[in-house]
Amino acid sequence: MTARVLVVDDLEPNVKLLEAKLRAEYFEVMTALSGEEAIRIAAEQQPDIVLLDVMMPGLDGFETCERLKANEKTWHIPVVMVTALDQQADRVAGLKAGADDFLTKPVQDIALFARVKSLTRFKQMTDELRHRHEAGARMGVLSQADLSKFDEQHATILAVTDCESIPALDQGSEHLPKHISVVYENDARMALEALRRGEPDLVLIDLSMESYDPLRLCSAIRAFDMTRLAPLLAIASRDETRHVVRALELGVSDYLMTPIDSEELAARVRTQLRRMRHIEHLRSSFDQTLEMAIMDQLTGLYNRRFLGAQGSRLVEEAHKSGEPLACLMVDIDHFKMVNDTYGHDAGDHILKEIAARLTTSVRGSDLACRTGGEEFAIIMPRTPRESAHEIANRVLRAVSGDKVKLDDGQTLDVTVSIGVSILHEGDKLATVLKRADEALYRSKQNGRNQVTDEAA
Amino acid sequence: MTARVLVVDDLEPNVKLLEAKLRAEYFEVMTALSGEEAIRIAAEQQPDIVLLDVMMPGLDGFETCERLKANEKTWHIPVVMVTALDQQADRVAGLKAGADDFLTKPVQDIALFARVKSLTRFKQMTDELRHRHEAGARMGVLSQADLSKFDEQHATILAVTDCESIPALDQGSEHLPKHISVVYENDARMALEALRRGEPDLVLIDLSMESYDPLRLCSAIRAFDMTRLAPLLAIASRDETRHVVRALELGVSDYLMTPIDSEELAARVRTQLRRMRHIEHLRSSFDQTLEMAIMDQLTGLYNRRFLGAQGSRLVEEAHKSGEPLACLMVDIDHFKMVNDTYGHDAGDHILKEIAARLTTSVRGSDLACRTGGEEFAIIMPRTPRESAHEIANRVLRAVSGDKVKLDDGQTLDVTVSIGVSILHEGDKLATVLKRADEALYRSKQNGRNQVTDEAA
Repeated sequence: MTARVLVVDDLEPNVKLLEAKLRAEYFEVMTALSGEEAIRIAAEQQPDIVLLDVMMPGLDGFETCERLKANEKTWHIPVVMVTALDQQADRVAGLKAGADDFLTKPVQDIALFARVKSLTRFKQMTDELRHRHEAGARMGVLSQADLSKFDEQHATILAVTDCESIPALDQGSEHLPKHISVVYENDARMALEALRRGEPDLVLIDLSMESYDPLRLCSAIRAFDMTRLAPLLAIASRDETRHVVRALELGVSDYLMTPIDSEELAARVRTQLRRMRHIEHLRSSFDQTLEMAIMDQLTGLYNRRFLGAQGSRLVEEAHKSGEPLACLMVDIDHFKMVNDTYGHDAGDHILKEIAARLTTSVRGSDLACRTGGEEFAIIMPRTPRESAHEIANRVLRAVSGDKVKLDDGQTLDVTVSIGVSILHEGDKLATVLKRADEALYRSKQNGRNQVTDEAA
Repeated sequence: MTARVLVVDDLEPNVKLLEAKLRAEYFEVMTALSGEEAIRIAAEQQPDIVLLDVMMPGLDGFETCERLKANEKTWHIPVVMVTALDQQADRVAGLKAGADDFLTKPVQDIALFARVKSLTRFKQMTDELRHRHEAGARMGVLSQADLSKFDEQHATILAVTDCESIPALDQGSEHLPKHISVVYENDARMALEALRRGEPDLVLIDLSMESYDPLRLCSAIRAFDMTRLAPLLAIASRDETRHVVRALELGVSDYLMTPIDSEELAARVRTQLRRMRHIEHLRSSFDQTLEMAIMDQLTGLYNRRFLGAQGSRLVEEAHKSGEPLACLMVDIDHFKMVNDTYGHDAGDHILKEIAARLTTSVRGSDLACRTGGEEFAIIMPRTPRESAHEIANRVLRAVSGDKVKLDDGQTLDVTVSIGVSILHEGDKLATVLKRADEALYRSKQNGRNQVTDEAA
């Protein structure tokens, strides 16, 4: 584990001291002598972590931290505040400014390396996701996360402790983000179960537990994919420093020393929850692009690409199992005329409405796609010819049964023409679709608003 | 750092010994007493790493490894072979079976934890990408990587050493994957430069270098995003074990002991290159879904979604800068009739051909999109009305100038109608597009194959 560390302090001897310590452990070090310089270097050089002195002339550490966290180029870089005094007020002010952690001067090696490694490990694990997401955001198809919204979501904290309660957690609820609920658990195995069911959003582990080795619990949580990045806060007393270091090595996200200050607890909980939600946002953005890649944006049906991929799979399965598979091709009648007469907006409205009626007429196992302008394909696995005709007629009635109401209140009669085909031995997807399309063409020739079989 | 380790050995005392060592360091341990059991558990439980005994009745270690690497559910899990004898032949056989590394019995703690941590760190860093990719593969829009193809790609190895050459690398070229070239570098700074330019695919670092601290070089390589996952092989002599452990901690991918066996070197190089290519494949799959999300599959033009995102951005910029912005709406004349007469395939062919002519008629700074069936929109930043008309007329001529040749050899006259509009103060994207669309409508009314201005 190595990392690029930006050391910020207005006093050069302090900078040199930290730089020497870090370089001896093979970290790469950059330095800045003021808040302004730190902000510039952080944006340009993208360090993995910033060690930030609190007391500086000009921009002090709090303000520098706030600006780093507000800048879209630097908000993701963890910031550790380095304070001369171990003052509770400073810690809370720093956390409110968005700092991820604290070190007290003179900086102890163990604490320094534990924090740097733990914070950069997390950053490096999420960097890949972040880079991909930013590519999508640059193209305008993915949105940047709105951090302020994260605080408004409901969250459940699971507190694992032998004690009946953690007073700071209950007292501190005025400081905690809104919509937080706390659940206590004194059985480590039950806690793990709850985590695997995805119940808690954050876990607090009391390192003074005696009923179960709390480090074993940390390890078990971190060893599973599903809970590898779950927020995990350790609580320890001053004489358990070695436990804390070990817990950080095992991947605990953060820790608090007893007696717990409720405001500090609240600030750390908020930081961890934001982080977790940010990862969730990054993950879901991939699912979003995937969805965009296979869905028709206007109608919400699957698109032609997905018809090709999934339809071919269904055809293969049908050949293997010997079960019948049916296809419908559906085309809206006189759509061009409607579009020209009532305008594009009306055309779009009709497409959406017909897609919706189609969706409610087919079954959950059917694959309904928009293949082009006003044309739809439906692949129906495990469906013989008779059932295919039943469903085709259901679609016909669903479309023609009720007039389509336009936004301006006008109503229109809309009908569709349908072609039906059944998978034959040796057919590819394209072949069976083509026969349905030819049958559809005959429906059009014979006066529209009707279902025609490939054999007719 | 913690991980879920699967220990495989037919002798229970061996299993118990490794289990105890690993559990004392807070690893989660699963066990299997045969190759068959190992394969089943690995597929079901998805450990982070497998420690696999070579000598077992039934499936031996080599065959078990081969099957694990051939199974799509387990191929990504690193396998460390545990051999009773430190025989070169076993090592090479293991590497050929796809093993990621070796441990020799009796297993030394330092070597054990160094290997387990290094291999699982890599796996955990790529797990996120892999999970996303698999979601895409399940939907059929992303392809699984074809590992065998990876070996056929060209690769450059950068060997950083004070020596003039590494004999095993030159001698060993018969064992190396085809299309490998080797470059030597004795200046660490130059090596780093080359890496940042993305030149080498794999770096060999000689840990006995004296001109520069080789560990510092490892750290510098790992500290940068761009080279964080680059394959990095260390070469060390037997008396440099401590160096090796430190190098592994800093993130070196693998190591070799001198004297180097050229076949072992070749096998390790192949493993590392495959891994690197696999990550590249995962990364590019995200870019692919992104592309699918913004491109029209048939014509390769941007789609309506991207027009909305990027077009709005261009409109905003134009309002800010005060520079003119123009829009064209383009619609193929009588397309429905062509489609009905010549069939869908001919229709698709015409759409592709017109899209290609459109692309060559507009400029690189213009945004050309297919907005629906046979309709296209072009947003032209920094373009006054006059230039917009010039380009519109160029499109008109590019379409009507040459007949479109269908696949069956028939040729068709195709024309388009075009509407032109210019961004006015306060316009949104939709407003300026709508005016171009209205102008397009007048082009149609007046006989098609012409350009009409919004003001006409």
